[in-house]
Amino acid sequence: MPGDPRPIGVFDSGMGGLTVLRALMARLPNEHFVYLGDTARLPYGTKSAETVQAYALQATRLLIEEGVKMLVIACNTASAVALYLLQEAWEPVPVIGVIEPGARAGIAATRNGRIAVIATEGTVRGGAYARAIHRLKRDVEVVQQPCQVFVALAEEGWTDSPVTVAAAERYLKPLFGGKGAPDTLVLGCTHFPVLAASIRKSVGDDVALVDSAETAATAVAAALDERKLASAPGYPGQARFFATDSPQRFARVGEIFLGRPIDARQVELVDLRAL
Amino acid sequence: MPGDPRPIGVFDSGMGGLTVLRALMARLPNEHFVYLGDTARLPYGTKSAETVQAYALQATRLLIEEGVKMLVIACNTASAVALYLLQEAWEPVPVIGVIEPGARAGIAATRNGRIAVIATEGTVRGGAYARAIHRLKRDVEVVQQPCQVFVALAEEGWTDSPVTVAAAERYLKPLFGGKGAPDTLVLGCTHFPVLAASIRKSVGDDVALVDSAETAATAVAAALDERKLASAPGYPGQARFFATDSPQRFARVGEIFLGRPIDARQVELVDLRAL
Repeated sequence: MPGDPRPIGVFDSGMGGLTVLRALMARLPNEHFVYLGDTARLPYGTKSAETVQAYALQATRLLIEEGVKMLVIACNTASAVALYLLQEAWEPVPVIGVIEPGARAGIAATRNGRIAVIATEGTVRGGAYARAIHRLKRDVEVVQQPCQVFVALAEEGWTDSPVTVAAAERYLKPLFGGKGAPDTLVLGCTHFPVLAASIRKSVGDDVALVDSAETAATAVAAALDERKLASAPGYPGQARFFATDSPQRFARVGEIFLGRPIDARQVELVDLRAL
Repeated sequence: MPGDPRPIGVFDSGMGGLTVLRALMARLPNEHFVYLGDTARLPYGTKSAETVQAYALQATRLLIEEGVKMLVIACNTASAVALYLLQEAWEPVPVIGVIEPGARAGIAATRNGRIAVIATEGTVRGGAYARAIHRLKRDVEVVQQPCQVFVALAEEGWTDSPVTVAAAERYLKPLFGGKGAPDTLVLGCTHFPVLAASIRKSVGDDVALVDSAETAATAVAAALDERKLASAPGYPGQARFFATDSPQRFARVGEIFLGRPIDARQVELVDLRAL
């Protein structure tokens, strides 16, 4: 079996989705990835569903035109409000979001049936995580909290700082303070995994943190197998980067999320108007 | 003299510019204002100069088409990178930015000849404040610090919170800690005036805080007089609002900056594609 050498497209509003790419590359070392960050219009998390849908549809066209065999919507906000639209638009290319894998992992982790989800304003407003969790299991209690400041803290690289701990206290203490608190916290934004150390200080050691990057990588691996789309073993995987604004900032901030240096000269600037 | 009843256009990337509108309304109670926040593409502060120029040019066309007699670029980032472009594009309508008024006020405030400027990444990168200050007075020392997290903290309404004080400590202690520290701090982003209490706690009582909203209002008042564009005394001023995304979020977050409630039904949604 020669395998399918076509790349996998990974789409995000900016650099946060590089946490998903990082998990994908670790999990699928023989795959090629083409990553697009819509940095000229980030963040999506504070924008309306209609605007995010229009942006995501326009931007993912570039990845489709690159001939991808599968599309991963690494952005939680875009997954929450635009997944079905993108699945319909790009059929027969499979489009996988991060919400359902995160919901599944949250259910697997909870013992007391209470799950907290932190995400952007847009993801929380649409209620996609609560719906996905309840579709899989009805008798689970879900509390949701938008944590918009976390996005800026992650992009600033303040991954383990007194500022981030103070923000985590303010957002999370009301959720985890009392009796009947959730035992599971779903990090429902690609920016949040890099803040895990500060979040952990606030919620304590007994709460399971669910990272939707890891769970999305598991879902993508399963879908590749199921559809016989995996590349041949031994194929040397690599990643290419596209951004709709400053390759320099993409490289600088992207390192925080990818966990390794990015050469700005290898980030290709895409003209918005050409999409 | 009947006065000029046409409105003044106020442009910003989002809601932060409402601090400028607030100062303008207090200063010029007989003027009409038309405010446009490009909320579908905010923030501008992390984007490249080319992208901000393209966005600002496209968005301000709407205000020009509303028949404004003057255009105020309330956004520091857009003022820093797009002012001359907009002045040229919309001639003969006068276009006033917030950088030069802020520079002028900083020079007036300093006694030791050392000024610190805090702003977005985009404003700092372009160095517009340092250039504007040095154009007016050569022998002034200017230090600049991007404070990107302040934008998110202001939009979250954490105007006086331990989180904001911790962020101010992290950003500002290195600037104001030692001997030969600046005695003046220019708040070079429209979001920052609402964080003044927390910023004050970090820099102490001896540092003059310069709010570019106030100084921009002074410059606009002077320009109206000079060009004989002021409305008639006794004319009841009012404000209209346009946004390129969610009127609900504009109203909710906008209150923080305008300092009074905004009715979401009175915020008109403008389609980006129509601009």
